[in-house]
Amino acid sequence: MKNQEIPYKTYLTEQELPTAWYNLRADMKTKPAPLLNPGTGKPLTAQELTPIFCEELVRQELDNDTAFFPIPDEIRDFYKMYRPSPLVRAYCLEKVLDTPAKIYYKFEGNNTSGSHKLNSAIAQAYYAKQQGLKGVTTETGAGQWGTALSMACAYLGLDLKVFMVKVSYEQKPFRREVMRTYGASVTPSPSMETEVGRRILEEFPGTTGSLGCAISEAVEAAVKNPGYRYVLGSVLNQVLLHQSVIGLEAKAAFEKIGVKPDVIIGCAGGGSNLGGLIAPFMGEKLRGEEDYRFIAVEPASCPSFTRGVFAYDFCDTGMICPLAKMYTLGSSFIPSANHAGGLRFHGMSTILSQLYHDGLMEARAVEQTSVFQAAEQFARCEGILPAPESSHAIRAAIDEALRCRETGEEKTILFGLTGTGYFDLTAYQQFNDGLMTDTVPTDEDLARSIVALPKVPEE
Amino acid sequence: MKNQEIPYKTYLTEQELPTAWYNLRADMKTKPAPLLNPGTGKPLTAQELTPIFCEELVRQELDNDTAFFPIPDEIRDFYKMYRPSPLVRAYCLEKVLDTPAKIYYKFEGNNTSGSHKLNSAIAQAYYAKQQGLKGVTTETGAGQWGTALSMACAYLGLDLKVFMVKVSYEQKPFRREVMRTYGASVTPSPSMETEVGRRILEEFPGTTGSLGCAISEAVEAAVKNPGYRYVLGSVLNQVLLHQSVIGLEAKAAFEKIGVKPDVIIGCAGGGSNLGGLIAPFMGEKLRGEEDYRFIAVEPASCPSFTRGVFAYDFCDTGMICPLAKMYTLGSSFIPSANHAGGLRFHGMSTILSQLYHDGLMEARAVEQTSVFQAAEQFARCEGILPAPESSHAIRAAIDEALRCRETGEEKTILFGLTGTGYFDLTAYQQFNDGLMTDTVPTDEDLARSIVALPKVPEE
Repeated sequence: MKNQEIPYKTYLTEQELPTAWYNLRADMKTKPAPLLNPGTGKPLTAQELTPIFCEELVRQELDNDTAFFPIPDEIRDFYKMYRPSPLVRAYCLEKVLDTPAKIYYKFEGNNTSGSHKLNSAIAQAYYAKQQGLKGVTTETGAGQWGTALSMACAYLGLDLKVFMVKVSYEQKPFRREVMRTYGASVTPSPSMETEVGRRILEEFPGTTGSLGCAISEAVEAAVKNPGYRYVLGSVLNQVLLHQSVIGLEAKAAFEKIGVKPDVIIGCAGGGSNLGGLIAPFMGEKLRGEEDYRFIAVEPASCPSFTRGVFAYDFCDTGMICPLAKMYTLGSSFIPSANHAGGLRFHGMSTILSQLYHDGLMEARAVEQTSVFQAAEQFARCEGILPAPESSHAIRAAIDEALRCRETGEEKTILFGLTGTGYFDLTAYQQFNDGLMTDTVPTDEDLARSIVALPKVPEE
Repeated sequence: MKNQEIPYKTYLTEQELPTAWYNLRADMKTKPAPLLNPGTGKPLTAQELTPIFCEELVRQELDNDTAFFPIPDEIRDFYKMYRPSPLVRAYCLEKVLDTPAKIYYKFEGNNTSGSHKLNSAIAQAYYAKQQGLKGVTTETGAGQWGTALSMACAYLGLDLKVFMVKVSYEQKPFRREVMRTYGASVTPSPSMETEVGRRILEEFPGTTGSLGCAISEAVEAAVKNPGYRYVLGSVLNQVLLHQSVIGLEAKAAFEKIGVKPDVIIGCAGGGSNLGGLIAPFMGEKLRGEEDYRFIAVEPASCPSFTRGVFAYDFCDTGMICPLAKMYTLGSSFIPSANHAGGLRFHGMSTILSQLYHDGLMEARAVEQTSVFQAAEQFARCEGILPAPESSHAIRAAIDEALRCRETGEEKTILFGLTGTGYFDLTAYQQFNDGLMTDTVPTDEDLARSIVALPKVPEE
């Protein structure tokens, strides 16, 4: 059944845990475009950002040149509770697919937050603590990021205020309870606790909230409460920096078993997991040392890379955040309500957007029914129930492996298994009952949201 | 913060995964009493058991003498997808408790079933497959065992029919959907599919079911369908045999880091996890090679060891299963409905019962509010949301560590962290809202259920 020389799971030792995060921007010939102040149209300065974000995180956000940022010992100690994460050889999936391809996945779901989000949550919470802050604020939709952050804050004794989109707060009580168990205060958004919340509630008394509104409330709560800052779980450069620990570990594990991947696949919402997974491999490609294929996989219902435009846009639907140059569907774009698999962000990390624009990475969009088919097939042979988000990458990995069956190529495929689906069983139920459908935005839908892009001065 | 020489997590390599299960019975001077046929009062023979259980499993069930049963390669390959499981040093918990004690836990929750149950599920499914059977039947309450079995059956291509207590089927849809995703058929019990189900539905049209009734339906479905057998997730000798992989790995990991535990703690419902964890350590004690303290922790609302009697009793509330000699509260005992933490079985493994009777193990009962307090404290510093069942062991481990703080003793404590609490968030919510209460059966309650023990001939 398998080549006994390569284990099912390759673990690094705790001594081999990376000691520094890798900043991919340092090796990019064309740097990602800077964030702009929506009022002035000029690049945001550290001074403008520090009332919102922690100082060290602002430094990391703006630094396009330093290749390595040392990981503080306290963060490495926290990492040791759930890292290094395993690089898994998918022997059973290979057998089921009857493919000559060798499939590996880097599994980030073995922690209570159930995803890779914890890698950046502990870093952001740590720098807040170091700065002497009392606490942080954030928003959460389905709750994956909020859960990760609540674990990090509980560990450090930092206060956490989560604004959770009201409809999720009511319909996904389990995520909410995990956050509460970790001591976070969780407020359904819109709330009466902020000016923007009160204004929205007055205008739309029956609203069930939106991520854009929750972001606005979280930012306001951070700015107006002394000793608080706002933190965000994806999209930002700092988040991709922290998530580089995924790729660094994967690369070291491959070196340990003497294997080099040919294709590297990750799902893409805001880009935090994909950016982290590919970072050191992409670095080699940028420096001309090695070549790899990279594939970003996005939902057909929210196809930023494959059908968006590369332009400056707001990061939030509320249009209060900075402007970022990225592949975007327009900040007013809302993916269809039937899309269950996360990855609902209209834009994309500026780093990944630049790499894609420069032809260094491929992208493809997949429909959700085929994503859940891949999830089911994977779960049944590999024994892990994957998150719907991660299953986008599984879909593409299976497709690549099936192509190898046709061509006879023995390619080595690596994909990121970002998390587990234990809190996504309503979506699985829909799939099990045969009730899942696919919706793809029409060209008219996209034209409507893309036309609304903000005007910015020419660079 | 910590002694850098001992890692947070000690993993064995896949080569070091045990090659044989250890049968503790082989080293017991007083063997566990045999199962009796409730009709004849005589020990059950292999011939009587094979219509219900697979042949190899019957052999394992009845063998009190063979010390080691080789683990087939196919089962070891499956184990490699989620084993060896880590032996974790609870550095953060030690720091929070400010104790000189060294705390370790063996973590069995890093698999999609979320518990140790998978260790026996794959073994039982494997032997069914080997015997050329089409499928197996079982019952499940909260769904932990059913989930594990559905994963094992999906992997082997074996049909699985789960009778799920109707109230759980309706109130815990997520566990049900995991089983369905793994291809199991899940029927709410009582159902119209069995004679016993139809009879019960006729008598009690509005019933929401019981574990006793689900067992009866699963056994009937196994016996009446050619090519099917019945499987069970705890209590039985064969289950403790398979679960010995937990203890064997823990012992090997301790040897790797040069540590010897003083106290070994596990939660006890039917006894599968505790029996598996302590097996090789208890073997050393029985052979006079080493000494350890063993502590079984049970809920105060279902206190088989601490307030039950050591006598022959039915294993099921429906009184159709064999009689087992064990610590029991009487098969008619039902723990209070407010008890959220599992471990609701009225009896106990015959192996553990004999060991406790012979003074080789201690037992204590803990109340559920204090169990959830321990769970919360553990989750916040160690980053894992524990299952309520496992949290009984955490409670006792914390209590032992706090005692060490008083006495200054540097004891080494090992406890079994059997699983995660991702599907128990309704109970956590109750706790977070301050609505959790404790109920303990009165002496009169116990007198009522214990007086109903069956009469069996004197041995």
